[in-house]
Amino acid sequence: MGEKYQALLHHLMEIRNVNRAEALLGWDQQVNMPPGGSKGRAAQVATLARIGHEMLTDEKTDMLLKEAQLELGDVAYDSDEASMIRVTRVDYHENTCIPSDLIAEHAEATALGHNIWKEARAKNDFAAFAPILTRILDLTRRMADYIGYQEHPYDALLGQYERGMKSSEVKRLFDEHKPPLVKLIAQINERADRVSDDVLHRDFPLDRQRQFCTDIASAIGYDFNRGRIDVATHPFAITFNQGDVRITTRYYQNFISPAIFGTMHESGHAMYEQGVSPTLEGTPLSRGASLGVHESQSRMWENFVGRSKGFWTWAYPQLQATFPESLGDVSVDAFYRAINKVGQSFIRVEADEATYNLHIMLRFELEMEMVAGNIPVEKLPDEWNQRFEAYFGIVPPTDTLGVLQDVHWSSGLIGYFATYALGNMLAAQYWQQALRTHPEIPAEIERGKFDTLLKWLNVNIHQHGRKFTPAELTKRITGESIKSSEYMKYLEAKYGEIYGL
Amino acid sequence: MGEKYQALLHHLMEIRNVNRAEALLGWDQQVNMPPGGSKGRAAQVATLARIGHEMLTDEKTDMLLKEAQLELGDVAYDSDEASMIRVTRVDYHENTCIPSDLIAEHAEATALGHNIWKEARAKNDFAAFAPILTRILDLTRRMADYIGYQEHPYDALLGQYERGMKSSEVKRLFDEHKPPLVKLIAQINERADRVSDDVLHRDFPLDRQRQFCTDIASAIGYDFNRGRIDVATHPFAITFNQGDVRITTRYYQNFISPAIFGTMHESGHAMYEQGVSPTLEGTPLSRGASLGVHESQSRMWENFVGRSKGFWTWAYPQLQATFPESLGDVSVDAFYRAINKVGQSFIRVEADEATYNLHIMLRFELEMEMVAGNIPVEKLPDEWNQRFEAYFGIVPPTDTLGVLQDVHWSSGLIGYFATYALGNMLAAQYWQQALRTHPEIPAEIERGKFDTLLKWLNVNIHQHGRKFTPAELTKRITGESIKSSEYMKYLEAKYGEIYGL
Repeated sequence: MGEKYQALLHHLMEIRNVNRAEALLGWDQQVNMPPGGSKGRAAQVATLARIGHEMLTDEKTDMLLKEAQLELGDVAYDSDEASMIRVTRVDYHENTCIPSDLIAEHAEATALGHNIWKEARAKNDFAAFAPILTRILDLTRRMADYIGYQEHPYDALLGQYERGMKSSEVKRLFDEHKPPLVKLIAQINERADRVSDDVLHRDFPLDRQRQFCTDIASAIGYDFNRGRIDVATHPFAITFNQGDVRITTRYYQNFISPAIFGTMHESGHAMYEQGVSPTLEGTPLSRGASLGVHESQSRMWENFVGRSKGFWTWAYPQLQATFPESLGDVSVDAFYRAINKVGQSFIRVEADEATYNLHIMLRFELEMEMVAGNIPVEKLPDEWNQRFEAYFGIVPPTDTLGVLQDVHWSSGLIGYFATYALGNMLAAQYWQQALRTHPEIPAEIERGKFDTLLKWLNVNIHQHGRKFTPAELTKRITGESIKSSEYMKYLEAKYGEIYGL
Repeated sequence: MGEKYQALLHHLMEIRNVNRAEALLGWDQQVNMPPGGSKGRAAQVATLARIGHEMLTDEKTDMLLKEAQLELGDVAYDSDEASMIRVTRVDYHENTCIPSDLIAEHAEATALGHNIWKEARAKNDFAAFAPILTRILDLTRRMADYIGYQEHPYDALLGQYERGMKSSEVKRLFDEHKPPLVKLIAQINERADRVSDDVLHRDFPLDRQRQFCTDIASAIGYDFNRGRIDVATHPFAITFNQGDVRITTRYYQNFISPAIFGTMHESGHAMYEQGVSPTLEGTPLSRGASLGVHESQSRMWENFVGRSKGFWTWAYPQLQATFPESLGDVSVDAFYRAINKVGQSFIRVEADEATYNLHIMLRFELEMEMVAGNIPVEKLPDEWNQRFEAYFGIVPPTDTLGVLQDVHWSSGLIGYFATYALGNMLAAQYWQQALRTHPEIPAEIERGKFDTLLKWLNVNIHQHGRKFTPAELTKRITGESIKSSEYMKYLEAKYGEIYGL
């Protein structure tokens, strides 16, 4: 490594140290902080956020990038060095292209918007939310113009979360699997009474849930020497450094699913970050490729592994032994069906893996139109409800259960939703590719052996950190573009069997 | 508040936010961090330390101080504004007066010194430690010259922990009570068999210790809405903001004292910081006046309250009910005597309140000579052992149990030890003053009522934060200088009764 590249790396790692200290402030706030700490903590977070942003957007970053590039000359596209400069160059652009008064205006509008939304949702009063949403949309459009795009302003927004991805591509993916998905859900709904999840709502003492979830996380490969599990209202995974990647989960005495599947989901995120190449540690590349690719990892462990029959062939005897009073009379097959019951919910965050992408499509379509200015904000509730009926066959009785349910728009997170659905599609693609290389994986999972799968993920996905865009990574792994067909095939096979379609 | 003062305050609060974020990194490291996190965490701490130091030592601080001073004009010495500028001016001097290459050299030497000391202590090999200690002493002397002093270079070092205090004053205080203390200890040692602490080493289940200590901390006034208790190997109190002041403690199944008295000690520190005036929150004044004054608070709650007969008149029935198997046959008087047994220990950190100051005097005397260059480093073990025999009547059998026992010198903490002894003296002075104003306090404590005492401490000590030097504060409270006689009177009365002297 040359001297200039070394200097760049040092600067970037200093920035990352500030970001990660800020991350600890956030983790502690959700896990440990006493009620009195809020105000002081907010001030500390703001200071570190400001410092980290100033360090990144300093002209020094630009200069160091140029000098390092010059020194480096021609190196392989996928080398650590070339990737570092390429990715950081875009980070720098994204963080410097928007004038600071627009950023401040946006921050102010979304802070206000968040509070207005909270009240509007509580009171089922969309009209109260409409004006600030209009303002946020306007500011967002201006930000998109500064970021730049080729086809559609939405691309600029989407690109913040899925680098290099175009909205036309997401639209193609969604258009492709919306019709079969709508059809599948309709068929399932006709046979809703074939599956009951009552057994999941029996009595499950918290201590034993905690022990079981810890054991499962450890078994699938989450490294507790470099992590820990705590309790938080909203489960999440968070990285302080490669040797310290933590997750949180939650336990309900009368509902076993959130703890088990929340833990497996967050373990998936955490194992991704634990698996990044040590050569990238502490740099801007020492995290996942994108939100969508990250979600592919969490959903693979939660759903493709955790909600499979094979997994419970191994795990169910342990679960039964942990909760003999509640599960002694429940067969593994009944349990498997219960954890895969497809519900008819108005609420995205309660959705199962079968209906999930439909919730996202609805939001994506509306966002595209909103950003293009084709739907006036006051028409959003109608648009929402019409689409909801078309996709799910039911109409939300209130806006609280409809267009007002999500926090995202009020916080300025426009272009974000698609990442969740991409996660499902990518999980299916990567899973199928892993199985093509290692057809023994399903049989291994039935024996509680997960390292073949994890090692494949480590080598093919995790180690690369953020070197590649989602499309580049997917091409490297599967030789193909992102597609929805594997996901649809997976859903049709699984739910066809469960619901006897 | 004028515009310039406002600008100064904003700058100082930003610095403090960085310092406090760094404090959370440290807390988490000792309380939660998985083993893998060490390396990455050290890098984060270093980055925040560097940033915080750069912000404080920036010329901007000097300019803001000057401008604010000019704008402020003549205001009362004890006003928040005048104190802010006065105290920060000294902070700024202390942090800018030493050339950065000397600071770097000192940091390198002490990092090395700490590792060498650890090994030397383990191997009882003082000769291995002597060269690096010589180097640290040399660097420390040079730093003292840069800080500046009037009488003795040691004053510059001491002043870092006890602002404005001179070593001649400490020497006077120590010389004053060393003879009666040596005499008292000798008398107690002759009657050592009159007190047994065997009952403290029975079986005390950890869960119940935790509950009891939490109840006690809450009862004496530690506010759990603005704090929490965790477990750590080395107990400490730490402030993230006025609404979040945490403590740690430790539990041993076969020794009840560390948990109870550790919790009360750290609660004393924490109640100090919880009690600083809200007008000082987030500024450099929102902490204790000095290490010694801080220690006066922890030791007052630990010893003057926690090891008093009155306290256990109230608390013992609860303790007995918590541990009926182990304490059912132990009278409150036997328990009171057990927790006040005076031991003959070579080790400072195991010392009781009667012998504690003697350990400190020995170190203080040696440090004064070391800094003045009157004792060659290689003579330290002999000097240590001779003094130890003179004060305690016993000679450490090894240097590991003698001159090598403390971490301080290897870490460059020279001038620090005296603060512990000052804490004992100040605790006695403040306690007596509180009792002069509120003679009902001892009777209240017997009934589990602590708010008269806490409120007195709040008003007279806590609220002022770091506005005053230890001498100024003590003068305000007691009308007198710091003195040792109250402490000696307290020890002679208490231990005279216990040991029948």
